Amino acid sequence: MLTTDVTPLRWRDGLQLLDQRQLPGRAVWVEIADAAAAVRAIRSLVVRGAPAIGLAAAYAMAAEARRNDDMRRLRRVARALAAARPTATNLAVAVRHVLTACEGAPAGERGAAALEAARRLHQADAAACEAIACHGAALFRQPVALLTHCNAGALATGGVGTALGVVRALHAQGRLVHVYACETRPVLQGARLTAWELLEDGIPVTVLVDSAAATLLARGAVQGVVVGADRIAADGAVANKVGTYPLAVLAARHRVPLVVAAPTTTFDLNCPNGAAIPIEERGGEEVRRFRRCRACPSGVGVFNPAFDVTPPELMYAIVSERGVACPVDAASVRQVAG
Amino acid sequence: MLTTDVTPLRWRDGLQLLDQRQLPGRAVWVEIADAAAAVRAIRSLVVRGAPAIGLAAAYAMAAEARRNDDMRRLRRVARALAAARPTATNLAVAVRHVLTACEGAPAGERGAAALEAARRLHQADAAACEAIACHGAALFRQPVALLTHCNAGALATGGVGTALGVVRALHAQGRLVHVYACETRPVLQGARLTAWELLEDGIPVTVLVDSAAATLLARGAVQGVVVGADRIAADGAVANKVGTYPLAVLAARHRVPLVVAAPTTTFDLNCPNGAAIPIEERGGEEVRRFRRCRACPSGVGVFNPAFDVTPPELMYAIVSERGVACPVDAASVRQVAG
Repeated sequence: MLTTDVTPLRWRDGLQLLDQRQLPGRAVWVEIADAAAAVRAIRSLVVRGAPAIGLAAAYAMAAEARRNDDMRRLRRVARALAAARPTATNLAVAVRHVLTACEGAPAGERGAAALEAARRLHQADAAACEAIACHGAALFRQPVALLTHCNAGALATGGVGTALGVVRALHAQGRLVHVYACETRPVLQGARLTAWELLEDGIPVTVLVDSAAATLLARGAVQGVVVGADRIAADGAVANKVGTYPLAVLAARHRVPLVVAAPTTTFDLNCPNGAAIPIEERGGEEVRRFRRCRACPSGVGVFNPAFDVTPPELMYAIVSERGVACPVDAASVRQVAG
Repeated sequence: MLTTDVTPLRWRDGLQLLDQRQLPGRAVWVEIADAAAAVRAIRSLVVRGAPAIGLAAAYAMAAEARRNDDMRRLRRVARALAAARPTATNLAVAVRHVLTACEGAPAGERGAAALEAARRLHQADAAACEAIACHGAALFRQPVALLTHCNAGALATGGVGTALGVVRALHAQGRLVHVYACETRPVLQGARLTAWELLEDGIPVTVLVDSAAATLLARGAVQGVVVGADRIAADGAVANKVGTYPLAVLAARHRVPLVVAAPTTTFDLNCPNGAAIPIEERGGEEVRRFRRCRACPSGVGVFNPAFDVTPPELMYAIVSERGVACPVDAASVRQVAG
C-alpha cells in the first residue's frame, strides 16, 4: 500500500482546498463555501489536475446540496461547475455522478447523499491511483530514471497520483534511479508542485526547463517518460498539459517509452479523436509574468494554450486502474476505459 | 538597407554594454573598464548572443591594449576573454583577430591597431547581418508567419541580427505576416529581448512558452522557423540555445522549414560534428528562479544545459553572409563558411 501525506483537498464539515498557487512557498488551506467559490478556485488554479478538479467540484455539489436541495437549483449549479474548465473530462463526470446521487434521494436527504457520493468518488480515485501505480510500475522491468511533466501527482488526485503514483511505486520497490521533472511553463506545476511533493516524500528529483528535456532524452539519461492526462479520446489521443506532445515526439525519436497514467474518469469514449477535444486557451498574463515578476514588454501579444494533444502512435501505453492499453488503439482503449 | 536603433554595445572612448539582464524593464548602459569586467559581463549575460560576445571581447581587448600594450600580457588577457564562455566559437575568433592585429603593430601603436581591428569586426558583423537577412528572406517566396527562439537579433549582434535580420528583411519587403517568439527559459531571451527589440522596430510579435511551439507547428500557424547559432560544426550540426533541437524535430515532423542564420564567424570547421561541441551547463539558480521570483523548492537539484545540438538532417538551410547551405551537409557548409 502506497501512502503520501500530500493531498489537494479535504472535507472538514465543508470543502477545503490547498491553495496550489502558493506552493512551494506556503501551504495555505482555503474554505470553499459554495459552487461559485469552487468555480473561481478551479479557474484560477487553486486546485488543478483532472481528477482533483473533479473531486473539488463533487464536494462543492455536496456543499450546495446540504444548504438547499432543490433539484432545479442543483442542476443549475452542476452545469456551472461542469463548465468551470473545458478540457478535463473528469470534471463533468464527477459533477454528473453527484447530481445523479441527489436525484436518487428524497428531498431532505440529498445533502447527505451528495456528500456520500463525493466521498465514494474520492475513495475510488485513491484506489484507482494505487492500481495505476501498480500496473504502471510493472511496465518497467529494470531500475529506471524517469522524466515527468506538469504534476500528475498526489496534488492532482485523491490519492498517490497517476504518473507520480507510478514513480512512488517504483521508489517503494527500490527500482527508481531518479526522477526528472520538467518545470512546465507557464504555471510551473513541475518546478513548484512535482518537486515539492516528491521532496515531501523523500524521492530524489531534478528540475529542468521544458526545452532541456530533449537533451536529456538525446543523452539516454531516462528510460521512460510518465505523464497524466486531462482527457483521453476513443482512439487513444491524449489531451494533457501543453508540452506533452513535444515530449512524446522526442521520446518516440529516442525510443524511450512514454506512458500515460490516468483513471477511467479521464476517458471520454464519446470523443472520437484528439481533434474533438476542446483545448482551453488561457489569458496572456500567465505567460507575461510569473507571480510578480514580469517577463515580456507590457502589451505584447501572447499565445497560451493550456493543453496539447498527443496522437496514440507516439505512446507506449496508457495505464488505467483496469489495466494497460499497449499498443494504444481504439480497441485497447475501450478495454481499459471500463 | 535595413536599420535598427537597437544595439548591445558601443564604444564611447571605452566599451559600454547595454545590460540585457534588465530588459525589457530598463535600458541601462554599463561601462566595461577592462577584460576582467568583460569576462564577468559575458558570464553573467549582461551581453549574450554569439556575435555580440565576440564583439564585446574584441573591444575589451582594445581597451586593454590601449592601457598597456605588452604582448605577453595581451596574450594572457586574450586567453581569459576567449575562455569566458565555452560554446560560442565567435568569442575565440574575435579575440584572436584583435590579438593578431596587436602582434602586427609596433609597441605604442597596438592600442590603436586593436581598436581599429575591433571596429572592423563590428562593421563586418553588421554587413554580415545585412547579407544574411537578404539571403534568408529570399528563401521564403510567399508571405510567411515565422517562429523564432531565443534572441538572434540586433541585441545579439553588431547589426540587424541574424534570425531577426531575416525577420526584418521580410517585414521591410511587406512579406512578414507575423512573428512568434518562444519565451526561451530559463533566461527568457525570447520574452524579454526578442519581443522588446521587435516592438521597438514596430514589428508585430506574439510570445509563447517554449512547450507551446509544438502546438503552433501542429496547427500549421507558421511557415518557417528561423534561429541563430552559437557554433556550427563541419558536418553542419548546430549548437544553439537549448530548445532549438526539439523545435527542429517538431518542425521536421510538420514539414516546416527550419533555417539557421549565422555569420561565418560562427562556423568551426575544426569541430567535426555536434558531439565535439562543448555544451555549457550553467548554475541551477537560473532555473530555480524566474527573474527574482522563486519557482522551485529551495535546494532541489537542477539540470541546466545552456545549449543543445541540432543534427544537419533536421534543417532546411544554413544561411551565412556568403550564401545558403541547402541541403545542409559537409560540402555545402564548407562553401558558406568561406
